[in-house]
Amino acid sequence: MTQYQDARPKHPMPFTRLEVCVLGLNDQGLHVLLGKREAQPYQGHWALPGGVLRIDLDEDLEGGARRVMHERLALELPFMRQLVAVGGKHRDHDRSPWALSVVYRALVWQTAVQPLAGKRLSDLAWRGVEDAVTDTKLAFDHRELVALAVERTRQEVADLELPVGFLPRAFTLGELQSICERILGRALDKSSFRRKLSDRGLVHPIEGEKRGGANRPAQLFELSR
Amino acid sequence: MTQYQDARPKHPMPFTRLEVCVLGLNDQGLHVLLGKREAQPYQGHWALPGGVLRIDLDEDLEGGARRVMHERLALELPFMRQLVAVGGKHRDHDRSPWALSVVYRALVWQTAVQPLAGKRLSDLAWRGVEDAVTDTKLAFDHRELVALAVERTRQEVADLELPVGFLPRAFTLGELQSICERILGRALDKSSFRRKLSDRGLVHPIEGEKRGGANRPAQLFELSR
Repeated sequence: MTQYQDARPKHPMPFTRLEVCVLGLNDQGLHVLLGKREAQPYQGHWALPGGVLRIDLDEDLEGGARRVMHERLALELPFMRQLVAVGGKHRDHDRSPWALSVVYRALVWQTAVQPLAGKRLSDLAWRGVEDAVTDTKLAFDHRELVALAVERTRQEVADLELPVGFLPRAFTLGELQSICERILGRALDKSSFRRKLSDRGLVHPIEGEKRGGANRPAQLFELSR
Repeated sequence: MTQYQDARPKHPMPFTRLEVCVLGLNDQGLHVLLGKREAQPYQGHWALPGGVLRIDLDEDLEGGARRVMHERLALELPFMRQLVAVGGKHRDHDRSPWALSVVYRALVWQTAVQPLAGKRLSDLAWRGVEDAVTDTKLAFDHRELVALAVERTRQEVADLELPVGFLPRAFTLGELQSICERILGRALDKSSFRRKLSDRGLVHPIEGEKRGGANRPAQLFELSR
């Protein structure tokens, strides 16, 4: 424990950052939260919010990502998962000869969060994901990172690995299907959706039902486990 | 490009390593390649082979992982994927106040490779994965990393995301099922296995058949795409 002053790595270490791809759902579908960069490199370009890993402040990688989200956006993220680590000589060569980013993805209800542009960002915006993944002006390699986050999130939902911490505690099966469809950006077949939920025991009925509009009252469910 | 001398990070960066979990298949099932550590920390303990990221040598993370596998084991790895990045204050505190590892997983035919113990390793061994994932004496957090690599690899095979670069170019459906079963460590239902392959168009027949033992000659297939 006391030896490490002598055992320092002989070689320079990479410039290491944490980036978070915050996906936000609203009635129109999936959006991604981008910040406008105040300084070089990529001044004035849109980018994923992120910041430098601080070994004096961060207990671990996920703790670092949560700290950065507090500082940049004043955001808490109940559903957050590691997406990928990317690193190389040419990622950020204005600032460092070798740049490593550990990237997380998160999923929130767009209307439930009020992100604030913290230091180093002059503006924040939600962008539709289909628009963002084709925008070649995004800073660094962030367009590819957004595409990967969208693909991974949609793949999980298509596989019915439902995002715990994001879904409401209680929902009707119609609401659940609508949430999945908006994340996926496409319609699902109702009977096959319900059969898979039931075959895999993913949800179970709870006491209570929901009345709405002209529809019959619908049974409420919650996620199993 | 020339600015980075002035724009060096103000904060110390983490001690960054690359580790590779090489899974090897033989007739008995899935094994993991472990090296015995010559020096402290964890001297004499078994660990995943790995090494320090060298920003002067490595073009990117995957290139670094391939370099380390050459130096430590004289191995080429046709199927290799990023598994996870792990990092924190308490991972390797004899050598550094904050240790980050980017971890890759690979899959090889155990009999087709001849890994050699390079520098910093006094021995190499293949261990059955069920044994390795319960061995609390493995160095660092490597037991959990092996468990994650096994889980991820088995999940892919269960989902019939077949490991390109690992499978032989041509195979009978019986051979493919047997390979999948040995990776999974459990039997698969033949008709449901073949139906899924066909429904998803994962393989297609090619010219030729394979004769063996008392069985009828069997059609040869290859992976589609």
